[in-house]
Amino acid sequence: MTTSVAQWGLFEASFTGPSEGNPFMEVTLEATFQQGERQVRVPGFYDGEGVYKIRFMPDQPGIWRFVTRSNASEPDGQGGEVSVTAPLPGRHGPVRVANTFHFAHADGTPYLPFGTTCYAWTHQPLAMQAQTLETLAKTRFNKVRMGVFPKDYPYNVNEPLHDVYQRGADGELDFDRPNPAAFRQFETQVMALGALGIEADVILFHPYDRWNYSGMSAEQDYRYVQYLVARLGAHANVWWALANEYDFMLDTKPMAQWDRFFQIIAENDPYRHLTSIHNGAPTANYDHRQPWVSHVCMQHWDVKRTPEWRAAYGKPVVNDEPEYEGNLTEAWGNITAEELVHRFWTMALRGAYAGHGETYRHPEDLIWWAKGGELHGEAWQRIGFLRDILEESVTNGFEPVDASVRFSSRISAATDGDTTIIYLGEHQPEIWPYGLPKVDGDYEVDLIDSWAMTVTPAEIVPAPENHPVRHGAVSIAKAPSAAFAVKLPRRPGLAIRVRSRVRG
Amino acid sequence: MTTSVAQWGLFEASFTGPSEGNPFMEVTLEATFQQGERQVRVPGFYDGEGVYKIRFMPDQPGIWRFVTRSNASEPDGQGGEVSVTAPLPGRHGPVRVANTFHFAHADGTPYLPFGTTCYAWTHQPLAMQAQTLETLAKTRFNKVRMGVFPKDYPYNVNEPLHDVYQRGADGELDFDRPNPAAFRQFETQVMALGALGIEADVILFHPYDRWNYSGMSAEQDYRYVQYLVARLGAHANVWWALANEYDFMLDTKPMAQWDRFFQIIAENDPYRHLTSIHNGAPTANYDHRQPWVSHVCMQHWDVKRTPEWRAAYGKPVVNDEPEYEGNLTEAWGNITAEELVHRFWTMALRGAYAGHGETYRHPEDLIWWAKGGELHGEAWQRIGFLRDILEESVTNGFEPVDASVRFSSRISAATDGDTTIIYLGEHQPEIWPYGLPKVDGDYEVDLIDSWAMTVTPAEIVPAPENHPVRHGAVSIAKAPSAAFAVKLPRRPGLAIRVRSRVRG
Repeated sequence: MTTSVAQWGLFEASFTGPSEGNPFMEVTLEATFQQGERQVRVPGFYDGEGVYKIRFMPDQPGIWRFVTRSNASEPDGQGGEVSVTAPLPGRHGPVRVANTFHFAHADGTPYLPFGTTCYAWTHQPLAMQAQTLETLAKTRFNKVRMGVFPKDYPYNVNEPLHDVYQRGADGELDFDRPNPAAFRQFETQVMALGALGIEADVILFHPYDRWNYSGMSAEQDYRYVQYLVARLGAHANVWWALANEYDFMLDTKPMAQWDRFFQIIAENDPYRHLTSIHNGAPTANYDHRQPWVSHVCMQHWDVKRTPEWRAAYGKPVVNDEPEYEGNLTEAWGNITAEELVHRFWTMALRGAYAGHGETYRHPEDLIWWAKGGELHGEAWQRIGFLRDILEESVTNGFEPVDASVRFSSRISAATDGDTTIIYLGEHQPEIWPYGLPKVDGDYEVDLIDSWAMTVTPAEIVPAPENHPVRHGAVSIAKAPSAAFAVKLPRRPGLAIRVRSRVRG
Repeated sequence: MTTSVAQWGLFEASFTGPSEGNPFMEVTLEATFQQGERQVRVPGFYDGEGVYKIRFMPDQPGIWRFVTRSNASEPDGQGGEVSVTAPLPGRHGPVRVANTFHFAHADGTPYLPFGTTCYAWTHQPLAMQAQTLETLAKTRFNKVRMGVFPKDYPYNVNEPLHDVYQRGADGELDFDRPNPAAFRQFETQVMALGALGIEADVILFHPYDRWNYSGMSAEQDYRYVQYLVARLGAHANVWWALANEYDFMLDTKPMAQWDRFFQIIAENDPYRHLTSIHNGAPTANYDHRQPWVSHVCMQHWDVKRTPEWRAAYGKPVVNDEPEYEGNLTEAWGNITAEELVHRFWTMALRGAYAGHGETYRHPEDLIWWAKGGELHGEAWQRIGFLRDILEESVTNGFEPVDASVRFSSRISAATDGDTTIIYLGEHQPEIWPYGLPKVDGDYEVDLIDSWAMTVTPAEIVPAPENHPVRHGAVSIAKAPSAAFAVKLPRRPGLAIRVRSRVRG
């Protein structure tokens, strides 16, 4: 039997097998997929009611053959042929690290993360989940942080749609028996996001919990990670976020356990999905230099520190919580829309990426950051505008450049290919020459208003004369001269974009 | 002969002596002032045209006797009696470090530095100097950063009123002969500031120079420091700022030379005026832990780092350049007034102090930051408002407190005596309970708008219910509850002030 599937699509094979005892713990299953000399080991999983499954995401077109291995006779030794066709339109494969500090899909298409946060959206009533997807479709967000487990936290206390584990005869959750219905619902929404071109940043653990999912034993945790990876790994748009605020669980899950989670993922995810872990305290970043960490996932409000984070880890930096737009009581969730937009531009033009969340009070606690639903704020449109601006010019990823006399950390500026964008933020120079081309040429120079979302031709004026700057007896190099300068209106949140008209 | 002078006033005695040769280098002069067992050594100086002077600032009332010593026969062995009366009204004595991170005058009156910058104002035409003093009198600034030497820098290129050193027959500056006229003019303005209750933050060296003052030899530098301290030290309102941006002069003045400048001041200033040194690069802070440094003088734009600076040095932190309000081309001089006011509040409510500068372009380059004159901006009034707010309640100095759930660095809040001020900045909670009193009492609670400069009674609402926050199996302490909360309008730049009505 040959099944056909598109490259980076989801191949699934089901088998019957034992249903007595606890198949989740007792029955092993894996498959080897082979194309030519290449062999890929793929873990399988028990989906309940005597059904076993193998999922596979082929990364190459052509014919693949597979065979299963199991300690149970029935799903053991099964096999078949998979014919892999060209990718579906708009599907570019999983996202990878590219050019040290950036990302690209497997087919090379640049991916600039513009994520948002809806921690428990897949645990809400189905109508609200549908509304979340409708809202996302109207935005330009291309990543959603979402937890496998439900959340118990201020403004977020309703019961989940499904228990993530099955309940025993005593009505208590049995952490040795995952609830396939919960995982299927989660997978449905991962796929729905995929159809919208959105990455699912799947959060495996978090501390905000009244069901004791976060209190499972280490062995149960390890089996959970393995089970989740076997189920979800073949979805192209999955990222592994080991935790939301892992450091608040160190009392019950010590650091070695977090390291082991990473290792289990590495052992069971043949696709090497992006993998990271998110901190709570500003001083508690995980050691993202570890080889099993693909990129930096973090929270910090002081986004001007971006150069420090890039230097510390040498990997892409995604600051998923530069605080949220809103008016909650909690200080992580009540900054102005203007400030959040400013933080996005600041990080993007320092060679890193920020994340969105929206936390406006709601009479029924329907808050985007927790439950999805509707957006009520003003930052999301501007963040979409920023994404459009960057994607219009991206090739390798915007790398920071010094667009100040001396210290780039005053101003955020970055270059990619023939495009330079200088974000002035709280700065309001009347005339700006720094970071602009030093030689005459055919340039397209635009003034961008990050809040008004406008792009207009910039007013070009002669570069100001360089007054020599002496350092005592030593005459230092003059400030870099530019071929021209830009005249600016007096208001914050402006950016200058320079592109060569002779495009590559 | 008995002369009468007020405590912390300026006693001056003049003597004739040799005028041939180079008295600046060849004639030594000092005096010992004695009251009871106490002896104070005071350096003297040559004021030109055969006149020698001793200046003394008595710190205790009563009778002091003095006697001079010189290697020249004429000013040697002179002496007299000084009758020191009570301080003049409004004079509180020199400013000292108080309570580790704060300042107070010698009589114990708290001093909160609200400084501005007019680097070369004493080198401008006299009419403009008068205008600067008039402007200062309208503001609430109580410190001015000002250079002994003139400055050559963009927007600041006019010739100074006086050469700081005398010119020889060849028309060249002779760095072995200070020009007393220049120093007298400088002293006149130091005293004029004193009459306005303003401290003179005297900058000894800076690199921006076309006259080669910054290229004097090490020996000339050492004599200059000694001469300056002998002339100015007896003025109560003097601070020693060894440099503006000392690190840009390390090529010609290595670190050991800066250390030696500090030592010369310590050896010649019996009053131990506040002494520090200001950096250029954000990574080049002087080691302010050195015993000869009284407080941290620095420049950095990222004022949320204030806790780090306090921790690193354990001394008062004065960030004189958190960037300037203006629209110059240079990034250090073009932030919005709103942003500068925000930086002042942020630092003040984190237990430190910011400094002001105004850098709006002017057709004749009459820019406050360089030349004084007139203010054109919008920050200075708000900074004065902040000073009034803090001084109204200050006793020991506002020390930072945690007014967030966990991390005080999100929010700036500080307490002094029975007053707590919580500055929300870019945060706009609808309801705010953190940092407010935990027990019922008789409180005066005000809402402060840092931009509108209004103080209005706050709208008190019940504190929000504490939803328990679990960390897995471990139930963490609930968020601190408050006796009440404040309801806030949705806009940035607000502060909450709580004072006990039962005042001490």
